[in-house]
Amino acid sequence: MEIQFLGTGAGMPSKQRNTSAIVMKLLQERGTFWLFDCGEATQHQMLYTALKPRKLEKIFITHLHGDHIFGLPGLLGSRSFLAGDSELTIYGPKGIKEWIHTTIRLSKTALQYPLTVVEISEGVIFEDDTFCVEAKELAHVIPSFGYRVTQKPLPPTLILEEAITRGVPRGPLLGQLKAGHDVELEDGSTVKSRDVTTAPADGFVVSILGDTKFCEASIQLCDEADLVIHEATFDGDTEKLAAEYGHSTIHDAAKVAQLANAKQLIATHISARFIGSAVRTLLEQGKTIFPFLTIAEDFSTYEWKNRTFHRIDSALMERKDDA
Amino acid sequence: MEIQFLGTGAGMPSKQRNTSAIVMKLLQERGTFWLFDCGEATQHQMLYTALKPRKLEKIFITHLHGDHIFGLPGLLGSRSFLAGDSELTIYGPKGIKEWIHTTIRLSKTALQYPLTVVEISEGVIFEDDTFCVEAKELAHVIPSFGYRVTQKPLPPTLILEEAITRGVPRGPLLGQLKAGHDVELEDGSTVKSRDVTTAPADGFVVSILGDTKFCEASIQLCDEADLVIHEATFDGDTEKLAAEYGHSTIHDAAKVAQLANAKQLIATHISARFIGSAVRTLLEQGKTIFPFLTIAEDFSTYEWKNRTFHRIDSALMERKDDA
Repeated sequence: MEIQFLGTGAGMPSKQRNTSAIVMKLLQERGTFWLFDCGEATQHQMLYTALKPRKLEKIFITHLHGDHIFGLPGLLGSRSFLAGDSELTIYGPKGIKEWIHTTIRLSKTALQYPLTVVEISEGVIFEDDTFCVEAKELAHVIPSFGYRVTQKPLPPTLILEEAITRGVPRGPLLGQLKAGHDVELEDGSTVKSRDVTTAPADGFVVSILGDTKFCEASIQLCDEADLVIHEATFDGDTEKLAAEYGHSTIHDAAKVAQLANAKQLIATHISARFIGSAVRTLLEQGKTIFPFLTIAEDFSTYEWKNRTFHRIDSALMERKDDA
Repeated sequence: MEIQFLGTGAGMPSKQRNTSAIVMKLLQERGTFWLFDCGEATQHQMLYTALKPRKLEKIFITHLHGDHIFGLPGLLGSRSFLAGDSELTIYGPKGIKEWIHTTIRLSKTALQYPLTVVEISEGVIFEDDTFCVEAKELAHVIPSFGYRVTQKPLPPTLILEEAITRGVPRGPLLGQLKAGHDVELEDGSTVKSRDVTTAPADGFVVSILGDTKFCEASIQLCDEADLVIHEATFDGDTEKLAAEYGHSTIHDAAKVAQLANAKQLIATHISARFIGSAVRTLLEQGKTIFPFLTIAEDFSTYEWKNRTFHRIDSALMERKDDA
């Protein structure tokens, strides 16, 4: 699993940061990727990555402000044009359905795949054998949600060499052992599943929050998360603006991660006023509260490996500014 | 007056060409600029020009396909955020009003300026003392319009030296002469307006067409125009695709300019299949029919000077790919 930021700015695009879009790449886990918010020109950003729109499986919209949704219609159309034929599901607050359907109808956008739009309320909004996604309402000037993505415990893995050593023949017995069942061999002896498999491993928990001021709901949604992705539109000097517009400072973001006992924090939705050394100052301010903090940049990518997120930007095909 | 192309691609954005948007800069004439179509990320393209969204006065939408309108909501919001407070008028086919108002309502976009949306039919859609804009329906798979912008004849200019030489004192008499009235001097002699003013000069006529196949309406709209801006999504080898999707080949565009007896032609809305030498081939194909042809590129700019459009890209502040 990898997290890639396609847009890390606030309100409007700038040369440094596009409007909000975060990719959760689940290529090994599901053969797909998920998208959290879709600001204008998200599909343009994808042109500079290895992402194929046809592999986009789910889009989670945190709230209906333009800098989080105005890239949706174009991406939906291009996904169809680029041979996307598998179902796509969009989750978002009330109103998302009317907007998408009105836009598709009036622009005569032809989609060659089934599109489902789900208007969410708090609670579990998606669950299957391997993943669960919960939504929780945060505190912004309009309804805004955060999403908590839980990967379910990974099944035991068969230690093939150990099974062979214990005399298990290649064939269906190996499958039974992997599935947790003990088996009896032809010589009458028994091989126990727990002796030839690894223990089930925990999956990851990633909480991705929409625009919000500091609130208790954020802390609950981020409880013990491996990674929190939280907005930090403002800094300590501009906390009055944060309060006025229902946003967070970098201190608020860090406090949420700290109080939730999260493992890592990436701050995003950074105001265009912070460039160059001001971003480093922002980072330092936040680290005084929660040291395991980084600040996202457009195209920055974080790989989940050995239960930690590592930045791996070198995996990029091409950076936009290098074109 | 200058014409600047912000998006010259067809259907989807590519690294080379964004979706449709054409700027008519009228900074000397009106202190404003006009925009023809507004594909997704038009506001992003503006970041790499000297254009200020607050100086945007009118937007003319040719048709409601996404690659011509999906940049509208973001630009409207950013214009407000960037201190735009003057009225903005959008002209477009039926449906544009519902889409814009639904989008503004659901995304809670706050506009600090008066916005008027006009659903057009054929004929004169705007006229004042200095400009007239006519619309005509073309032939596409959905209603699609072309716009003919006529600058009215420029008023006579006073030749100040000539008036002084003939004894006219500085003061109100000069204004009367400029306005076309003859005046009597204190010594009883008469100075005729026509002797101290230049003749009225013709303005320009620029026809900007939406997506269309070859049709008679295009020729009428482009009659004797100084500049025709016509789509050329396809070439001679792909004319079947052009017919299927209601588009033009470069030959169709050139034929329209030729039959309309236009002075210059810029082809735009170029399929992403044409890159590098294929664009030069496209140009050569079109020039066999109408020699006064160029093919637009993103950010290419044409100045109207001495009754001809000249490419002046050096006026760019910064090219996107140079960032």
